[in-house]
Amino acid sequence: MSIATKMHVSDRPKAVVIGVGPEQGLGAGLSRRFAAEGRHVIIAGRTEAKIERVRESIVEAGGSASTVVMDVTSEADVIRLFDIAMQADEHGASADLIAYNAGNNQPLDLRTMEADVFESFWRLNCFGGFLVGREAARRFAPLGRGSILFSGATGALRGMPNFAHFASSKAGLRMLAQSMAREFGPLGLHVAHIVIDGGIDGERVHTRFTEHVKQKGVDGLLDIDAIADAFWSLHRQHRSAWTHELDLRPFKEAF
Amino acid sequence: MSIATKMHVSDRPKAVVIGVGPEQGLGAGLSRRFAAEGRHVIIAGRTEAKIERVRESIVEAGGSASTVVMDVTSEADVIRLFDIAMQADEHGASADLIAYNAGNNQPLDLRTMEADVFESFWRLNCFGGFLVGREAARRFAPLGRGSILFSGATGALRGMPNFAHFASSKAGLRMLAQSMAREFGPLGLHVAHIVIDGGIDGERVHTRFTEHVKQKGVDGLLDIDAIADAFWSLHRQHRSAWTHELDLRPFKEAF
Amino acid sequence: MSIATKMHVSDRPKAVVIGVGPEQGLGAGLSRRFAAEGRHVIIAGRTEAKIERVRESIVEAGGSASTVVMDVTSEADVIRLFDIAMQADEHGASADLIAYNAGNNQPLDLRTMEADVFESFWRLNCFGGFLVGREAARRFAPLGRGSILFSGATGALRGMPNFAHFASSKAGLRMLAQSMAREFGPLGLHVAHIVIDGGIDGERVHTRFTEHVKQKGVDGLLDIDAIADAFWSLHRQHRSAWTHELDLRPFKEAF
Amino acid sequence: MSIATKMHVSDRPKAVVIGVGPEQGLGAGLSRRFAAEGRHVIIAGRTEAKIERVRESIVEAGGSASTVVMDVTSEADVIRLFDIAMQADEHGASADLIAYNAGNNQPLDLRTMEADVFESFWRLNCFGGFLVGREAARRFAPLGRGSILFSGATGALRGMPNFAHFASSKAGLRMLAQSMAREFGPLGLHVAHIVIDGGIDGERVHTRFTEHVKQKGVDGLLDIDAIADAFWSLHRQHRSAWTHELDLRPFKEAF
Repeated sequence: MSIATKMHVSDRPKAVVIGVGPEQGLGAGLSRRFAAEGRHVIIAGRTEAKIERVRESIVEAGGSASTVVMDVTSEADVIRLFDIAMQADEHGASADLIAYNAGNNQPLDLRTMEADVFESFWRLNCFGGFLVGREAARRFAPLGRGSILFSGATGALRGMPNFAHFASSKAGLRMLAQSMAREFGPLGLHVAHIVIDGGIDGERVHTRFTEHVKQKGVDGLLDIDAIADAFWSLHRQHRSAWTHELDLRPFKEAF
Repeated sequence: MSIATKMHVSDRPKAVVIGVGPEQGLGAGLSRRFAAEGRHVIIAGRTEAKIERVRESIVEAGGSASTVVMDVTSEADVIRLFDIAMQADEHGASADLIAYNAGNNQPLDLRTMEADVFESFWRLNCFGGFLVGREAARRFAPLGRGSILFSGATGALRGMPNFAHFASSKAGLRMLAQSMAREFGPLGLHVAHIVIDGGIDGERVHTRFTEHVKQKGVDGLLDIDAIADAFWSLHRQHRSAWTHELDLRPFKEAF
Repeated sequence: MSIATKMHVSDRPKAVVIGVGPEQGLGAGLSRRFAAEGRHVIIAGRTEAKIERVRESIVEAGGSASTVVMDVTSEADVIRLFDIAMQADEHGASADLIAYNAGNNQPLDLRTMEADVFESFWRLNCFGGFLVGREAARRFAPLGRGSILFSGATGALRGMPNFAHFASSKAGLRMLAQSMAREFGPLGLHVAHIVIDGGIDGERVHTRFTEHVKQKGVDGLLDIDAIADAFWSLHRQHRSAWTHELDLRPFKEAF
Repeated sequence: MSIATKMHVSDRPKAVVIGVGPEQGLGAGLSRRFAAEGRHVIIAGRTEAKIERVRESIVEAGGSASTVVMDVTSEADVIRLFDIAMQADEHGASADLIAYNAGNNQPLDLRTMEADVFESFWRLNCFGGFLVGREAARRFAPLGRGSILFSGATGALRGMPNFAHFASSKAGLRMLAQSMAREFGPLGLHVAHIVIDGGIDGERVHTRFTEHVKQKGVDGLLDIDAIADAFWSLHRQHRSAWTHELDLRPFKEAF
């Protein structure tokens, strides 16, 4: 999609993507998509070099973007991010779209798992979501509008061997999102939980799981632009017909 | 949305909407939307006068549509409908999009419900879905493509007092859809179940439940075009990121 | 468990088991268990020879039982059964415990399934449950007490390839049960749905799936007396802490 | 139930109840019930005076019990508890039954919730369950037996306004339990999650919510002994027919 024709963005609300890493990851894909829709995108992530590269690629394509280096598990960082995002400035009006895409996964035997490992999964997959969700609710509620989209996982709905830590943290995120949807929907906030079921066709899977990629075949992994489509469609939904939860999976994925 | 610019549809696959009634109902809205996307729409319903009126409104707007009078609970009628829809003709290529929107609802006390009433809800809400789903699977599978979208309800997920007949039939439809998604997804068929949670802003609610409409307020009922957006978005999804189930509800709906 | 010591049953409410077949099946096991608890059991099933054999085995063990040959999909048969069960007589007081155990399962390709096959699964797995549930609600509600227990299946919660007919019908039964629980719980009726997840260690599996039995190993199939324990425990629950749904599966079953 | 006749317990496995508070609370009720079944019970809780009172009441009734003052969110405390429980001693053989009953609840507005409040609910409702579940898995798996029962809540399945913190933490506990059931069931460990839906008829509700108690009426609150019945029944289930999850609610509770 060409971004080149969308230059004047300053009157449009900004978008924020939290949890952006490699250029071929989902966070980057969401950022590119929101920019392609004419939004100034605030790219938030832990590693400056990575988010800077995503920003550059967006600007090169004619879009508008800026970066915020931050740790989603830090309350101060999250508040600072929203201070920036909710400020109307030359980039655009105050943000009306937040995607929480931070997260981690890895199979681990429960019996040998250290307590701080269990906790660290919760901090990233759930607690960071709370910090962001609470801050978004605080800022959006007085305005009576705004989308808060959480990247979820099948693990949130189904606990599996060696994934107790992951399932537990993602289920925590899911119920946070569901509670928020019920609490803030009537105030005009659209809270949605996107259940991503399957491998994402990004840098992570290609560098670490090459055998898995081969085995899945054509369209056997979730295309990042296709996922971004779903996020954008959610944001665009009319408030008389909002989706709170949907699943996304490759057509050949057993589920 | 103007349909006027989409005149030459004959090379595009046709779309079929089953369960079309009043001009201000969901079936009609889906038909209009698919036509607006440049598809010839086959409008299927029980009452000739009603579906003819929907057809006329589409044609007047510059779209292409035809009607099939049918009973979704009749196997012969369903087969005949697919014979028409899957034939490439001057209207378009063989259909690749089916929406099953037939259904009925009404609160009833279980203890005084006649057995044939319980059965009639199942016939319309579930058995018709089987006939259509099976026929679509038969026709689409050899082609390796096609979307089958079922209008569902919250009752499918949650049984409530006075709605045992409704919940039972809609749950039957939901599990049919879910089984089909798992059985035919890997063959290239996109089967989705749309959980409509709330009153639809159509003729039915306005003529029968005027008090309810008033109480719900602005955007308190599901806008038909907004629902149609969701159906169309599902059909357009890339096969690497298909949604099987999503919910749709007004922002202020308690759920 | 010896039944011999429980001879005088006439003051206790009768129990009814619907869907009794082979002596080594679940229906027979439920019947034996209720008899062992001192209840006169009405054994209802399609095949006289089978239910008569179950009755004899109970009487030989010192219990009390009678049979009703019936088709659960026949409204007249179901009403006749309740006329017998709800009559206080020499066997006991009017029934306060109904187990609906009728059902059928078999993998089938959706595309080649005849419409009357799809319907026949619904008739047995769901419609019979409606007839029984409605009749039980009619008879129990004025008395303000009574348990209605439905044998369910995982298919009710999860549709799988080649089991669309089964999943659809069992989901219909589940939502019937859930609606009834919400409608009749406050009137004192305990409606429960038992999700049996795995093979039952009965005649059916041993004659038809000998390889499956071997592969499952010790306690890899659901012991019928263990299932019957769960049914009886449900009936015995205090009304301040009723269970509506529970699952039962072998310890080694993947789920 | 009289405990007086069960004096010689030393050859039976011990039971452990974690999260015991007031004498009229669920933890105390579970302790009494396990003692009444002839088990030496280890009563674990934060407040020495409270658990000592529960111990005394059990001993007075002829049962056997001891106490461990501990904080379930402390890894060292949990390990120490299991060191005691898994030691065969004069009180009994190594424990084969653990009930995790720690937890907290309170409605809170998400927007004004402090981050450490959100975290503290997670620590008690979920992280403590991880510490206990992991330790139980470590100790039970080599023995190939043991029950691990988690007190759950409806909030784990359904997020509600003002309960985001609670729902999130309880959903985390639920998915931990479900993952553990799948991971350790085949090793002989019975992991179950008991969804308690409604007010518990204990000290807490009577002192804090007297109006609520009155409004609920007779049997409108969950009787503690009835809940304890369900826990004990789960522990007694045959391994060919284990329940992983069940709900418990008063007959008149809307759900």
